[in-house]
Amino acid sequence: MASSMKFTDCSPSTTVRLLPYTRTRLRSSDGAVLSHRLLALPRPAIAYPTAFVSRSSASTLPVVSASISTESTAKVIDGKLVAKQIREEITAEVSRMKEAIGVVPGLAVILVGDRKDSATYVRNKKKACESVGIKSFEVNLPEDSTEQEVLKYISGYNDDPSVHGILVQLPLPKHMNEQSILHAVSIEKDVDGFHPLNIGRLAMRGEEPLFVPCTPKGCIELLHRYNISIKGKRAVVIGRSNIVGTPAALLLQGEDATVSVVHSRTKDPEELTRQADIIISAVGKANMVRGSWIKPGAVIIDVGINPVEDASSPRGYRLVGDVCYEEASKIASAITPVPGGVGPMTIAMLLSNTLTAAKRTHNFQ
Amino acid sequence: MASSMKFTDCSPSTTVRLLPYTRTRLRSSDGAVLSHRLLALPRPAIAYPTAFVSRSSASTLPVVSASISTESTAKVIDGKLVAKQIREEITAEVSRMKEAIGVVPGLAVILVGDRKDSATYVRNKKKACESVGIKSFEVNLPEDSTEQEVLKYISGYNDDPSVHGILVQLPLPKHMNEQSILHAVSIEKDVDGFHPLNIGRLAMRGEEPLFVPCTPKGCIELLHRYNISIKGKRAVVIGRSNIVGTPAALLLQGEDATVSVVHSRTKDPEELTRQADIIISAVGKANMVRGSWIKPGAVIIDVGINPVEDASSPRGYRLVGDVCYEEASKIASAITPVPGGVGPMTIAMLLSNTLTAAKRTHNFQ
Repeated sequence: MASSMKFTDCSPSTTVRLLPYTRTRLRSSDGAVLSHRLLALPRPAIAYPTAFVSRSSASTLPVVSASISTESTAKVIDGKLVAKQIREEITAEVSRMKEAIGVVPGLAVILVGDRKDSATYVRNKKKACESVGIKSFEVNLPEDSTEQEVLKYISGYNDDPSVHGILVQLPLPKHMNEQSILHAVSIEKDVDGFHPLNIGRLAMRGEEPLFVPCTPKGCIELLHRYNISIKGKRAVVIGRSNIVGTPAALLLQGEDATVSVVHSRTKDPEELTRQADIIISAVGKANMVRGSWIKPGAVIIDVGINPVEDASSPRGYRLVGDVCYEEASKIASAITPVPGGVGPMTIAMLLSNTLTAAKRTHNFQ
Repeated sequence: MASSMKFTDCSPSTTVRLLPYTRTRLRSSDGAVLSHRLLALPRPAIAYPTAFVSRSSASTLPVVSASISTESTAKVIDGKLVAKQIREEITAEVSRMKEAIGVVPGLAVILVGDRKDSATYVRNKKKACESVGIKSFEVNLPEDSTEQEVLKYISGYNDDPSVHGILVQLPLPKHMNEQSILHAVSIEKDVDGFHPLNIGRLAMRGEEPLFVPCTPKGCIELLHRYNISIKGKRAVVIGRSNIVGTPAALLLQGEDATVSVVHSRTKDPEELTRQADIIISAVGKANMVRGSWIKPGAVIIDVGINPVEDASSPRGYRLVGDVCYEEASKIASAITPVPGGVGPMTIAMLLSNTLTAAKRTHNFQ
């Protein structure tokens, strides 16, 4: 796949320009979690390329310079494939649960307003639920709804025993207080994992969150499924958002990585990224991370999904990550593509969280 | 003060040996918070040495090597002096509150068992409360109390309107579940700030914790009071405990530092510490951080309070920090001594949190 991707505009000085909804798309990420432990299933039998696994200790790698190497050497971390595998595992678990105790996990999605991108996300979630046998509930409220109306629906779903997970599609209309709406979701049904109590438990040793936000957990899941060791590794997270960067850093630290968080106020971010064995980037800036930022042999997880103008595309744009793939793939040992990397993991993790919620409610293991 | 301290045993290969209760002492730290904003008072008028302030951008400093310099050059960050100033500010505020609305802040301390060190801490807290006009409540339960008995007292203090802060002295006897007891404290009275909801809010942008754990907030308060800039600086926190390391890292990040957390699984920790403009060490290992770990001009906040054997002391031991003071004070631009650095800030922050709790309950500003 890597060889088929042709990015020739990694330099920010070229015609690459962020389209205005870049940030919003990042904010629309949902939270979900999956681990082999939770699903109690063996690792997938997919024949992943494993050549890079033994190279995760990057300091032993020969130096590969972008200037002298013109071929992509990094293994592609195939999020689409992993997400498919996870959905199959969830399908089997949902089926087992239904047969054993007659309970079907349910996910309710609340959409306010008529943003096209949000409607697409909600539709995709609904389809994903159907594909694994999770029952989906949906309410679509008009843009000019009051906060009270949204809260009424949340309250209803909080009380509804057939709903195990509740998701409020972000962003909400500007006249609403996002915090007070998100906090109204019952902690037991907060499959997004955005509640401060969940984030606090994620941060604290000896505490367990009920749910972990899905995009960061999707990142870690990719590392796990590709047998990329985290313990003792130097990791850099670029970005400190509540829904990706901060929980990703906490998760990496929880797995014994030594974590540095780079953000908009960081001077000379590449000084840190160049030391990292693992980089997770979640800032929403097209091609920001250049080849020179990367240590040879590092593993790159690119959360950014940035539309850039592309006259040759029928849509007039194409999607690129935060990382200059063309340069990075020559230096890293493994890298997620955009699209097809972290993206597909998000909904898979949401489904997993919903399954977890249903299992927990009914004490089903 | 620095010149009067003589540490000649920074090397772990000498006779320095951790006494067995080192860790326990660290765990006994309490949480509290104070900021100029909360107190609405001007910065203290104490004549602090400020020569180092303009040197906080360490990269511009001349290289000072421990091997060629025999004199201490670092300014001493005098926690004892700052804590005294803060207590005076609190005294004034408590008095103003009492006169205005007739309310006296109250702090309840629950001590279980007969550990001498715990009893000393509780006695010191009580005395500190008295010194600023905060009313103190105390219950001392026997070692073999049940969890239910402790919970009964917490419940009583939760309901008591004259109690604004509740503190459970750690460690608890081993037969008790520390988490379930700490979680029973009403979030509005959790002046220790150890509740996951508080830690989560600390971690999240746009959220505000009700209380911040006192030791890490004491560290940040020292930086503030000495006008040491945090924004954009590289910071390393050594240790990732729930009560010091993790919240300290979150606080530094919240103030726009670029933070790395070093811990027991970190390979080559000094690679990171040598890049840091600010180091906060909270691991409980005597003299672990050597001069060679420190960038010239860095600021060192040493949370460790480690007893080491000292035959020349009447007590048979003396207290040293995590940082080899003798070496560090020749390289750093500013450093906290042990004792007399972070230590005295803990109780000051606890008093501050109690005042904050009372003000919030009575909507007094």
